[in-house]
Amino acid sequence: MSQRVKVKQILSADKTHYEVTVKGWVRSFRNNQFIALNDGSTNNNLQIVIAAENTDPALLKRITTGAAISATGEIIPSLGKGQKVELKASTLEILGDCDPEKYPLQLKNKPSLEYLREIAHLRFRTNTFGAIFRVRHTLAFAVHKFFNDRGFVYLHTPIITASDAEGAGEMFRVTSLDLKNPPLTPAGDIDFKEDFFGRSTNLTVSGQLEGELGAMAFGDIYTFGPTFRAENSNTARHLAEFWMIEPEMAFYELKDNMDLAEAFIKYVIGYALEHNREDLEFLAQRLIEEEKQKPQQERSEMGLVEKLEFVLNNEFMRLTYTDAIHILKDSKPNKNKKFQYLIEEWGADLQSEHERYLVEKHFKKPVILTDYPKAIKSFYMKQNEDGKTVKAMDILFPGIGEIVGGSQREENYDKLVARMEELHLPVEEMSWYLDTRRYGSCPHSGFGLGFERLVLFVTGMGNIRDVIPFPRTPKSAEF
Amino acid sequence: MSQRVKVKQILSADKTHYEVTVKGWVRSFRNNQFIALNDGSTNNNLQIVIAAENTDPALLKRITTGAAISATGEIIPSLGKGQKVELKASTLEILGDCDPEKYPLQLKNKPSLEYLREIAHLRFRTNTFGAIFRVRHTLAFAVHKFFNDRGFVYLHTPIITASDAEGAGEMFRVTSLDLKNPPLTPAGDIDFKEDFFGRSTNLTVSGQLEGELGAMAFGDIYTFGPTFRAENSNTARHLAEFWMIEPEMAFYELKDNMDLAEAFIKYVIGYALEHNREDLEFLAQRLIEEEKQKPQQERSEMGLVEKLEFVLNNEFMRLTYTDAIHILKDSKPNKNKKFQYLIEEWGADLQSEHERYLVEKHFKKPVILTDYPKAIKSFYMKQNEDGKTVKAMDILFPGIGEIVGGSQREENYDKLVARMEELHLPVEEMSWYLDTRRYGSCPHSGFGLGFERLVLFVTGMGNIRDVIPFPRTPKSAEF
Repeated sequence: MSQRVKVKQILSADKTHYEVTVKGWVRSFRNNQFIALNDGSTNNNLQIVIAAENTDPALLKRITTGAAISATGEIIPSLGKGQKVELKASTLEILGDCDPEKYPLQLKNKPSLEYLREIAHLRFRTNTFGAIFRVRHTLAFAVHKFFNDRGFVYLHTPIITASDAEGAGEMFRVTSLDLKNPPLTPAGDIDFKEDFFGRSTNLTVSGQLEGELGAMAFGDIYTFGPTFRAENSNTARHLAEFWMIEPEMAFYELKDNMDLAEAFIKYVIGYALEHNREDLEFLAQRLIEEEKQKPQQERSEMGLVEKLEFVLNNEFMRLTYTDAIHILKDSKPNKNKKFQYLIEEWGADLQSEHERYLVEKHFKKPVILTDYPKAIKSFYMKQNEDGKTVKAMDILFPGIGEIVGGSQREENYDKLVARMEELHLPVEEMSWYLDTRRYGSCPHSGFGLGFERLVLFVTGMGNIRDVIPFPRTPKSAEF
Repeated sequence: MSQRVKVKQILSADKTHYEVTVKGWVRSFRNNQFIALNDGSTNNNLQIVIAAENTDPALLKRITTGAAISATGEIIPSLGKGQKVELKASTLEILGDCDPEKYPLQLKNKPSLEYLREIAHLRFRTNTFGAIFRVRHTLAFAVHKFFNDRGFVYLHTPIITASDAEGAGEMFRVTSLDLKNPPLTPAGDIDFKEDFFGRSTNLTVSGQLEGELGAMAFGDIYTFGPTFRAENSNTARHLAEFWMIEPEMAFYELKDNMDLAEAFIKYVIGYALEHNREDLEFLAQRLIEEEKQKPQQERSEMGLVEKLEFVLNNEFMRLTYTDAIHILKDSKPNKNKKFQYLIEEWGADLQSEHERYLVEKHFKKPVILTDYPKAIKSFYMKQNEDGKTVKAMDILFPGIGEIVGGSQREENYDKLVARMEELHLPVEEMSWYLDTRRYGSCPHSGFGLGFERLVLFVTGMGNIRDVIPFPRTPKSAEF
C-alpha cells in the first residue's frame, strides 16, 4: 500500500500521475462510479473513480454516505467539472459501514442548524460545521502566534477559584461534598472547611486578577482558557461555558491598550483570511443563501469576506462615552422614541440597541468607546481626574455588540482600596491582589475578548451555540 | 521620551549609542550607582548607570529591590563584567515604590521553594520562576505549533460535562443549587432536574471521548485544556487541576500513535532548547546547586540540558508489557525483594518503582510500553486477537514516570459494547459516543499528555506545584 496522503495536499499540489492511498468518509456516490471523499483536511472532496464492472456488487452497495473507506490508485487529471484531479482507484476497502436507513445526516432535505445542534456529535461532518471549526482552529492558533511573536507569556490562570470579587457574574459552585448529607457548622451552615479545598470554591469568571500578578513580573502576559457564567440567559449570544482571551500589560496606558486590541483583532482576522480562504468563502455563500429568506432591507450590506476585509482595512472609530451619549441623545431613534431605552442623561448604561446604532448606523465601522462613568464599570479600572469616569474601553462590532472589554487598571493603592470599600468588596481577602499595588506598582492595562464572539463574527454565524463544539446553556449539557 | 524597548531586545542586539526608554523592576542597586533592571522579557538584567552626584538623594533612597522604574538614556558598551552593554541614564522616574522593610522577596537568605509557594502571586518575580514560566509558555506554544503545522484541528472539548463514564478518576461536582436547601425528588434524593443544566454535572477528567467525535470528521484533532481530579493525593506529582493535551487521529494504528507521540515530545523539547536556552541553562545551574545537598549517588548523572538533548537524540525503547514483566521478574530488586510490590505473575499493574527501574536502571532512556492486560486498562482500548491484551501504550520518562497514556481505540461496535457491558458501563447514556462506531467507524488512536509533567521534566523541577502558576491541591485553592 502506498503512503496515505490527505485530500488537502492532493488538491493543492499541481501534480498528477503518482500513486497514493487516501482514507476518509464518503460524502456521495453517483452512477456506481464517482465517490466524493472527504477526510476533514479541507471542505473540498476528492473525486474517486471506480470501475463498477470490476467491483463486487456487494462492495458497491456498501459505498454509502458516511461510510469510512480506504482507496489506493493513481492521481490523474480530471475530465469532469469542479476538480482538476481525481483518483483512479485500483483498490477500495470499506473500513466502516454507514447504514443509510439510520444515518442522521442521510437526509434528503438539508438539515437545519437547530437539528444539527441536537446531534452536535455528528455535525462536524457537514460542510458548514467543518468550515466553522477549521476557522475556529485557525483563529485560536493566530491568537497564540500573535502574542508569542510579541514576547507575551501564556499564563494558565486557575479555573477553580475561591476568589469571588471580580463581580463579573454569577458563578458555578465546585464541590466534592455529599449534597444529600453535607457537613454543617455548629451554626447550621454548610461547613466548607470539610470541602475538597477547605473552603467554598467556584468556577472562574475571569483570569484577569491573576493575570495582573503575572504582568507585574513578566511585563506582558495573556490567558486563553475557559470561563463560566451561571446566568439563566437563553440567548443567541450567551453561553454558560466559553473561552476568553485576556492579555495584561505592565506599563501600558489606555491608548496602548486600544492600539494592541485593534492590532490583535486585525491580525487574527487577517490570519484567517490568509489561511482559511476557502472555508470563509463557503461560509460567505452559506450566509447569502440564509439571507435570501430575509426581506431585502434586513440583509447584510456586505458579503462575509468583504466585511472582514473592511474591518482589516479601516481604523476603528475611537470616542468617549460622553461623546457617544451626545450622538445618541440627538439621534433619530432617540428623538422618535424608537429606542426601547431612551437616552435622557449622562450616566445611562448603554444597551445593545445603542451600541448597534453607533456601530451599524452612525459610524458604520467598529467603535472603541472609552472613559465610561465609574458607577457602571468595575472597581479595578483607573479613575480619571474628573472623579466621574474611568479609563475603560469597550470595542463594539457590527452584529455582535461588545467583543472586547478592557481598561487601564487603577495602580494607586489608596485609590483602589477606597473604591473597593465604597463597593463593599472584601479588601482583606484580596490582599494578594493589592500586593501588586504595594510592591512596585506601575501603570498597566488589559482587556478580555470573548473567543466565541470573535468566531461568530468571522464565520458570519448567527447563534453562538454553532461556533463552540459542545455548547453549555441552561438545561443543556449534552455529550 | 524615546521609544520603550524591552531588555531582551537591547541585550540581544549588537548595537550601542542609541537612546531608549526602559521600564521594569529593580532587582538590585549597588554603590548608589548601578541598578540591575528586570522587565520579565528575559532572566537577564540590564545594568543602568546613574550619576549619584546629580541625583536627588530622596530619589536614590527610593531605588529599592522590587520598585518599578522608568529610565531613559543612551545604550553604551559596558566596562563592567557580565554584560556587553549598559544604559547610561539621563532621566529616571520611580513608577511604584517597594518598601524594603515589607517586601517579602527582600530577603537576605534565598527564599525556599516552599516559602515561595505560599506567595505564589509574587514568585514570578524571582529568577527561578521567571525561567520556569517562560519555558512553560514556550512549551505551550510549541504544542500548538506542532499540531497546527500538521493540519490538526484544535478542538475545545467541554469542561462541564454530564458524562461520567471515562472512569479516569474522581470528579468534582458543578452545581448552582442552594446547598443548604436543595430541591428534592419525591423519593428524597437531590433533584438535579432543578440544577442549572437540568442534570448532575461534573468537571471533565478527559476530553478524549468528545475528541474522538471530532477525529471522525476532521481526521486529526487535539485538545489542550484543563482537566480535574477530585482525588485526595497530596504528592509532588498530583494536582486537582491540570492541563492536558489529547490528540485523536482517525486512521492511526498503534504504531502510528507511538510515532506521533515520540515525534511530538521531541519537537516540543527541541523547541524549548532552541527558544529558551538561557532559561534552561539557568534552571540547569539551579538543579546542580540543589543536588549539592544530596549524597553523590542520588545526584543526576546528566545535567538538565544534557538530559533534554539525550531524549532528543535517542529513540525511545519500545516493548510490550509482557516483555517488561519478564525483565522485571528477573531483575535484581525483584529477586532481592527490594521492590515494595514484587512482580510474581503476568497481569500485575506496574507501580512507579517498576516503571523507574525499567527507565532509569534497565534501559536508561524513555520507554514505550504497549499491549497491556485489558483488565488494567480502559474500556475503549482496542482488544488484541489474544483476548487478553489491549493496544495500549504508556510512555515512561526518567524521574517523572508516566508522561503519556494512549491507545488504539476499539472501533468495532459489537466488541466495544460487549466490553462496556462487562464493565457495567451505561451503554444507553453513551449512545452518542457509540455513534462513531455505528456510522463510518475506522481504526483510530490517540493519547493524553499531562502538560505539567512535561514542564516538570523540561525544567528539572521536583514538585509539580512549582510548574503551574496557581496550584490546586487538597485543602488549597489560594489566589
